[in-house]
Amino acid sequence: MAKHRAASIDGKLSEEFAVPSHVDDVTELMAAFAERHGAAGRRLVLITSGGTKVPLESRTVRFLDNFSSGRRGASSAEYFLDAGYAVIFLHRHRSLYPYARQYSGVNLLDSLQLGGSGGGDQVVVVNREALPKIDKVLKRYQDVKRDGLLLPVEFSTLSEYLHLLKASAQVLGTLGSKAMFYLAAAVSDFYIPASDMPEHKIQSSNGPLQISMKMVPKILSPLVKDWAPRAFVISFKLETDTSILLDKARKALDTYRHQAVVANVLDTRRGYVVVVTHDTQAELILTDEDVSKGVEIEDMIVSNLTRAHAQFISKQEG
Amino acid sequence: MAKHRAASIDGKLSEEFAVPSHVDDVTELMAAFAERHGAAGRRLVLITSGGTKVPLESRTVRFLDNFSSGRRGASSAEYFLDAGYAVIFLHRHRSLYPYARQYSGVNLLDSLQLGGSGGGDQVVVVNREALPKIDKVLKRYQDVKRDGLLLPVEFSTLSEYLHLLKASAQVLGTLGSKAMFYLAAAVSDFYIPASDMPEHKIQSSNGPLQISMKMVPKILSPLVKDWAPRAFVISFKLETDTSILLDKARKALDTYRHQAVVANVLDTRRGYVVVVTHDTQAELILTDEDVSKGVEIEDMIVSNLTRAHAQFISKQEG
Repeated sequence: MAKHRAASIDGKLSEEFAVPSHVDDVTELMAAFAERHGAAGRRLVLITSGGTKVPLESRTVRFLDNFSSGRRGASSAEYFLDAGYAVIFLHRHRSLYPYARQYSGVNLLDSLQLGGSGGGDQVVVVNREALPKIDKVLKRYQDVKRDGLLLPVEFSTLSEYLHLLKASAQVLGTLGSKAMFYLAAAVSDFYIPASDMPEHKIQSSNGPLQISMKMVPKILSPLVKDWAPRAFVISFKLETDTSILLDKARKALDTYRHQAVVANVLDTRRGYVVVVTHDTQAELILTDEDVSKGVEIEDMIVSNLTRAHAQFISKQEG
Repeated sequence: MAKHRAASIDGKLSEEFAVPSHVDDVTELMAAFAERHGAAGRRLVLITSGGTKVPLESRTVRFLDNFSSGRRGASSAEYFLDAGYAVIFLHRHRSLYPYARQYSGVNLLDSLQLGGSGGGDQVVVVNREALPKIDKVLKRYQDVKRDGLLLPVEFSTLSEYLHLLKASAQVLGTLGSKAMFYLAAAVSDFYIPASDMPEHKIQSSNGPLQISMKMVPKILSPLVKDWAPRAFVISFKLETDTSILLDKARKALDTYRHQAVVANVLDTRRGYVVVVTHDTQAELILTDEDVSKGVEIEDMIVSNLTRAHAQFISKQEG
């Protein structure tokens, strides 16, 4: 019966959500990436990051979006790389990116200055005060790139996200327990089926707007049951109402039978999360001292989960 | 009667749209900016740019958005500065910014390289291939900044946009015909009044979502009639359906009695616009040759409008 439901979600995915044109190319890249790192005995994490765009018109002017800068996904990617993982970074176009996210508030041109003109062109150098630690960050970024440890994949719309997540799950399914899913993207719960969507921009002269949205199929269900049944799967739960948060996290674990939920509240998400598993509940709290030292909560989340992942692997192998 | 309608829009603005906390500070900055450039005999343009965010919840997780990278506003700002204008750039937070927009697709870290380590810190320099013409662009950006010709002001939500536009219009109203409004932002036509908005994140467990949105008051009406009645005002009209475009542009001119509408279609907006005035209609077309030379359509739009603005000023003064 649960199996049956997962299969019907998969069917709905092909019928009601347009398949993005780059899905085959991306799948090939992900398969080569997974094979290479799997052969090297490396653990691999798929991180999803950023919000999804839900178009209201097929020639899209307006869309529904979810609040997310992609900060959590981008910073977590750095900590997973530090822990020796290979990372597929499935992120919203123009959301924050690992390493570069450390300078996301800076205008590029405010961080550069004209140097001496040696010959024809003037040398342009970085103003180090505008980009603290840039030499170390750049070095680390270049090392990660040189070693091919980070595979970026972009989505914009909800349809793109769903199809690319399915493709990546089927690829990572081949790695068994060595694969982790870290589903930090802020995915819409609602969408408008292509068949209900007007082609052209909705006219304001038609009067007030009524939008009817259907519920997005719960893709976690076929992911856990069919596509990557042996993988270590983490979902995220963001609420604004603290009182319902843990209840919702437990309910998600009971429903989808995956390994953990990272539960967080909008206002406090940068300093407090709870990692909920079937039989544990770990509060991770950033102290004022941590903040003053530049410690980020994603460091603590990733430490917690990579430890749990190692135990998960040895249990499955034992 | 028209006067009466403009006044009622103004009233609705204070009642149904939360006043942003920074509006007084920004107004002071704009007033000082306008006074300084007015005294120097300089023309001044207020450019609005980027899309508006319309929250669905008061502790916002979800929002309605409008497609807009802010490219047109950001590039137009450069051409207005080249034409000798002072520019107030009222733009969506994180949308494209003048000059920096020329490198918007580039990851900062891909554009830098480690130089020789002279002493303790390594020098970090720009990889010029990643940032073409960076020395010229940086020089121009720094000159504009040094001369205080560009005042950036940020908004995110529709409420912020509306209140900041009102504040800027009241400030620029003091400059008479020397002020231009170039309203290129993609502003939502619909919103949810604060009183109808749920506080917390909408729960998907409640089933499919019905959203009822009211129509946003037409702020162009009090802007033209009350706040800046002598200014030169340009609005933009973006449609996906070519057949209704010019009709809608003419209708807007008849309704609001401002000076021009820049009409464009989503798919062709980077190569074709029509500047519609009460008695003229100018098609601006970017040829393949223009494109190969790096000419942008915003150069043509701004040329057309600065010429018209000069005529408008001499007619009013004559």
